[in-house]
Amino acid sequence: SALCMAIFYKGMTDRETADLTMSMARSGDTVDLSEFGDLSADKHSTGGVGDKTTLIVAPIVAALGAKVAKMSGRGLGHTGGTVDKLEAIPGYRTSLSPEEFMEQSRTVGACVISQTGNLTPADKKLYALRDVTATVDSIPLITSSVMSKKLAAGAKNIVLDVKCGSGAFMKTPDDAKKLAKNMVDIGKSCGRNVVALITDMDAPLGKAIGNSLEVAEAARLLKTGEDCDLMRVSMALASNMIALVKKISVGEALALVKECVRSGAAFEKMKQWISSQGGDSACLDDPSLLPQARLSVPVTSPSDGYIGSMDAQAIGSAAMILGAGRASKNDVIDPAAGIVLEKKTGDRVKKGETLCTLYTNRENSVEEAKNVFLAALSFTAEKPEIRPLVLGRVE
Amino acid sequence: SALCMAIFYKGMTDRETADLTMSMARSGDTVDLSEFGDLSADKHSTGGVGDKTTLIVAPIVAALGAKVAKMSGRGLGHTGGTVDKLEAIPGYRTSLSPEEFMEQSRTVGACVISQTGNLTPADKKLYALRDVTATVDSIPLITSSVMSKKLAAGAKNIVLDVKCGSGAFMKTPDDAKKLAKNMVDIGKSCGRNVVALITDMDAPLGKAIGNSLEVAEAARLLKTGEDCDLMRVSMALASNMIALVKKISVGEALALVKECVRSGAAFEKMKQWISSQGGDSACLDDPSLLPQARLSVPVTSPSDGYIGSMDAQAIGSAAMILGAGRASKNDVIDPAAGIVLEKKTGDRVKKGETLCTLYTNRENSVEEAKNVFLAALSFTAEKPEIRPLVLGRVE
Repeated sequence: SALCMAIFYKGMTDRETADLTMSMARSGDTVDLSEFGDLSADKHSTGGVGDKTTLIVAPIVAALGAKVAKMSGRGLGHTGGTVDKLEAIPGYRTSLSPEEFMEQSRTVGACVISQTGNLTPADKKLYALRDVTATVDSIPLITSSVMSKKLAAGAKNIVLDVKCGSGAFMKTPDDAKKLAKNMVDIGKSCGRNVVALITDMDAPLGKAIGNSLEVAEAARLLKTGEDCDLMRVSMALASNMIALVKKISVGEALALVKECVRSGAAFEKMKQWISSQGGDSACLDDPSLLPQARLSVPVTSPSDGYIGSMDAQAIGSAAMILGAGRASKNDVIDPAAGIVLEKKTGDRVKKGETLCTLYTNRENSVEEAKNVFLAALSFTAEKPEIRPLVLGRVE
Repeated sequence: SALCMAIFYKGMTDRETADLTMSMARSGDTVDLSEFGDLSADKHSTGGVGDKTTLIVAPIVAALGAKVAKMSGRGLGHTGGTVDKLEAIPGYRTSLSPEEFMEQSRTVGACVISQTGNLTPADKKLYALRDVTATVDSIPLITSSVMSKKLAAGAKNIVLDVKCGSGAFMKTPDDAKKLAKNMVDIGKSCGRNVVALITDMDAPLGKAIGNSLEVAEAARLLKTGEDCDLMRVSMALASNMIALVKKISVGEALALVKECVRSGAAFEKMKQWISSQGGDSACLDDPSLLPQARLSVPVTSPSDGYIGSMDAQAIGSAAMILGAGRASKNDVIDPAAGIVLEKKTGDRVKKGETLCTLYTNRENSVEEAKNVFLAALSFTAEKPEIRPLVLGRVE
């Protein structure tokens, strides 16, 4: 606890951060992906609202020959976890034996499970201490926590998605860049290929927030190739992963990624991945097969104008109130609950027009979620400037 | 641990320090000295080398009608504890029942025992954490630790002796003044009369360091009234206590203190105090009745000149090596061990002249202690300026 607080106030030198990271990476089991040589690829997001990029990126890069043998986390607070999203798919097994995990990675190329075994136990202990001592929000501690897990998880190529904005840990591009640089340097000093993208998290990513709803959105985008913020960020991540794996430029990699989506290969790979992990892949074509909420309540605009801003963190909290997330570790998630946005920042709205739809099984959560959602929006008379989705790249 | 570290780096507001102090003061038993009304008086020293002022001050102020019902601590590291010194007196009981403690304070006016009962248990726990997290050296944490104990110990009038210099926690007068101000304010806000003196601890106080040796020095000074640094600091403390107790000026109080020593009343009170607490008061007249070391080794001057400075902390360490102190909590003290200085800062010395005598029962400690002692001295060609003993007063 004292160490966490001292680091929180005084920071760490690069050497100290690297030493702590390596100590934590080696504190427990490590995953050996060496049989995949330079093909193994991992991504990590520092956590955002509506961030289902793993569901889109993993099948794309697997379809292009990379090996995504990945462990993901659960969500806490206003951000969701990939494992929670995948568990919304009937039958999907997030726990596989080490042999099943490697075999599926070998044959399918994409396998996503929940953290298993005794990976980075020192990080778990330190994180628990950071949580109770209010020292989570420290760049060197975030760096060592993220990178120790990534190093222990074994991938040769790692693309980091450092979120920046109201819905993220890092509120400013400068802070996000500092964190990204810190993480990239440490990964490289340990012999991994690492690139970080700084991406916008002022508004939620995509339109769906909530586990079933996000699976449906990811499947629909891969199936249709629809262009939107979520798809652009996903393709940026995927092309950076492929660039590392194939040692080509990001531009060349992006062309491969686009073709892989257009041809339907990526969506096919998604179905193969989900079904070989026990999930019902039919629900990727037909989202009505996913858990459905009893109530759907539209929220309408209180005024005319443009949506000037959306507070992603507050919208994540509204989804949590509806049952989509955990306020504390032992809360049970309702996979059907969540929010689908109809309008996003920069969109013109008329009074009475639907801004979003709330999905829930808890009648008594609707009023509060609605109020939290509306309070998260600001309206402007002029069309606001929209900042680019990818704010920077650190390599 | 995290709290200690946060306070270490960020400090505390006055309000926070006061709240922590009061919480710790109330965390266990408190001593009720209300039957003594405004007569109860306590002193506290932040810890120094050769500091035996309690042995001199308690009988003086008791002889003048104040009630010194006092709990004292043990020494650790280079500073000694009053309880260790008193235990050098054959028969002296540092543990009394609460009834004995109050009865002796009533009839004799001076009673000094080791901390008893469950006084400020929160401070003990916090101190243990500060010790292992390297956060001992923090002004608000020192303040709340000292003052919680003083408040729990019940005296109405409190004089603090904040040491300043190479042998003390506070190295500069500014830091010492800050600490003193902090402690005085908190004591006053809790309804106590509090004054602090900033006193010099660049050199050891008096000539004796080590438990028997210090008892002998204190007794000799009270018996003879000899003027020296130790006597002047003791009289300053005593007159400030009497000024608070009798609501008179410090000047008037000092006149009473001097007369009390000159008349022999203070020395008589010392004998009464020691004997009624089970100690052999004959050894106050005849120091050869105190534990004696087998070896006494003079250390001679390596050069001609003036003693320019003496590092009190290093000299305390030399005494500890001889057996006079504890390096760790469970070490056993040799009451006979220690150092008697023949020369102090500002004294002229000739090569080969005796600087001090080492007393010990450990043959193999002599060489190291001698080296540490000599390294603690600097010699100058010119007579150095001596700063005043009392550097400031905060009320």
